[in-house]
Amino acid sequence: MIVVKIGGSAGVNLEAVCDDAASLVRGGQRLVLVHGGSDATNTLARSLGTPQRTITSPSGHQSRRTDRETLAVFQMACRGMLNQKIVELLQARGVNAVGLSGMDGRLWEGERKKAIRSVEGTRTVIIRDDYSGNVERVNAGLLRTLLEAGYTPVVSPPGISTEHEPINVDADRAAAATAAALGAESLLLLSNVRGLLSAFPDESTLIERVDRAGIEHAASIAQGRMKKKVLGAADALVGGVRRVVIGDARSPGSISRALSGEGTVFS
Amino acid sequence: MIVVKIGGSAGVNLEAVCDDAASLVRGGQRLVLVHGGSDATNTLARSLGTPQRTITSPSGHQSRRTDRETLAVFQMACRGMLNQKIVELLQARGVNAVGLSGMDGRLWEGERKKAIRSVEGTRTVIIRDDYSGNVERVNAGLLRTLLEAGYTPVVSPPGISTEHEPINVDADRAAAATAAALGAESLLLLSNVRGLLSAFPDESTLIERVDRAGIEHAASIAQGRMKKKVLGAADALVGGVRRVVIGDARSPGSISRALSGEGTVFS
Repeated sequence: MIVVKIGGSAGVNLEAVCDDAASLVRGGQRLVLVHGGSDATNTLARSLGTPQRTITSPSGHQSRRTDRETLAVFQMACRGMLNQKIVELLQARGVNAVGLSGMDGRLWEGERKKAIRSVEGTRTVIIRDDYSGNVERVNAGLLRTLLEAGYTPVVSPPGISTEHEPINVDADRAAAATAAALGAESLLLLSNVRGLLSAFPDESTLIERVDRAGIEHAASIAQGRMKKKVLGAADALVGGVRRVVIGDARSPGSISRALSGEGTVFS
Repeated sequence: MIVVKIGGSAGVNLEAVCDDAASLVRGGQRLVLVHGGSDATNTLARSLGTPQRTITSPSGHQSRRTDRETLAVFQMACRGMLNQKIVELLQARGVNAVGLSGMDGRLWEGERKKAIRSVEGTRTVIIRDDYSGNVERVNAGLLRTLLEAGYTPVVSPPGISTEHEPINVDADRAAAATAAALGAESLLLLSNVRGLLSAFPDESTLIERVDRAGIEHAASIAQGRMKKKVLGAADALVGGVRRVVIGDARSPGSISRALSGEGTVFS
């Protein structure tokens, strides 16, 4: 069993990822695909004229401001568009894919963050109407039911809060929680870079291996979205996943290449 | 087992429908919910500035022109927004709902109509890039798998073509095909009218019962979207469903009232 998170950024070759996924599924590999939708959300928000804002935490970490209006845009982009695009690509390749969000069957459940500190200029304000959180429980039973019946789940944010609201969750870390809950052998986090780079964006500085002792250092090197991937890798290893690979989804065979150890391997 | 189609038109009380669904599910009733998304699609298309057009068949029947751009809007509105809203309402009422589109697991499969005749002014043109069709096969196995595992499926258009494209399908007739495939006892088609009216919109002219011999006459009375419901009722009866009720979803208890025979009963 493997869990594959596909990034939605520019350069990611979704068709090629689905070609590779289909050939693995045909070969008997059990596979759960996870995706995010940051870029698709930004594009749709621009078309709709919905303002997109960022929250900056006191420690300098940035995240999407997800009020209820942005959440609706996020659901349309992730769940309505990108998830169904991936299902379509897989169905066209003979894979009987089933799209799910983290709300369906309470697949990804966690607390909503009810008070978020945000630095705005020189002030720190408390935001109470944000819909975001972390995945604390995964309904692995639903995924197993579908896998055993021959389906390939394709999972998209949002998750669901303990009070039944949609919550924006980070898809890399949600994929990590999913891999741990399923007892997956490998978690692959594929995007538009070769892996973790010691001097981003210089791709010749790929770090090929990170062991458990080196994760803290790796997280300190990682920038922007890569930091979430490294934290996801750490979560997954702690959760019992044997191996996590941060790999490249820009060219064909990306899943197979990551499985063979191409990219940054955490173990 | 019952299949309930909920209309998305103005006046439909989704919260009340979900209250009623939850109380039935708690009582052990197996339920599949189906919804469309015409009004939600129109609203989103207006926000996005996507022009919405209508196809008029030589026999005068009107349908949505679904080119690939409109299809994307339709998927975002149906699948991304309305479907997940219903899942959220049910989850908040303790029902473990799972949203699916007709593409997921090839739930609703049919041929895409590759040449549609459309009357435009005095000319009849052939449209070849429309994405619509009828549901010819239902993957009842996927629905049964979910129901047996304790989930309540909530199914949304589009369907999937034999060539793996999304296709706009009529949700009333798709619900009828679903009820037949599941061997459901009842199919309820709930919207913002009391039922089939002999003199629309006069609600005092409700037709309370239609038997098999009367269906053709009923279809000739029905106007606009109601015609699809009557055709759906006919499909379902032919498919072995014992009873179809066209009922009112504007006030509380709509599912229970339709089950008790309130509305227009076809049997």
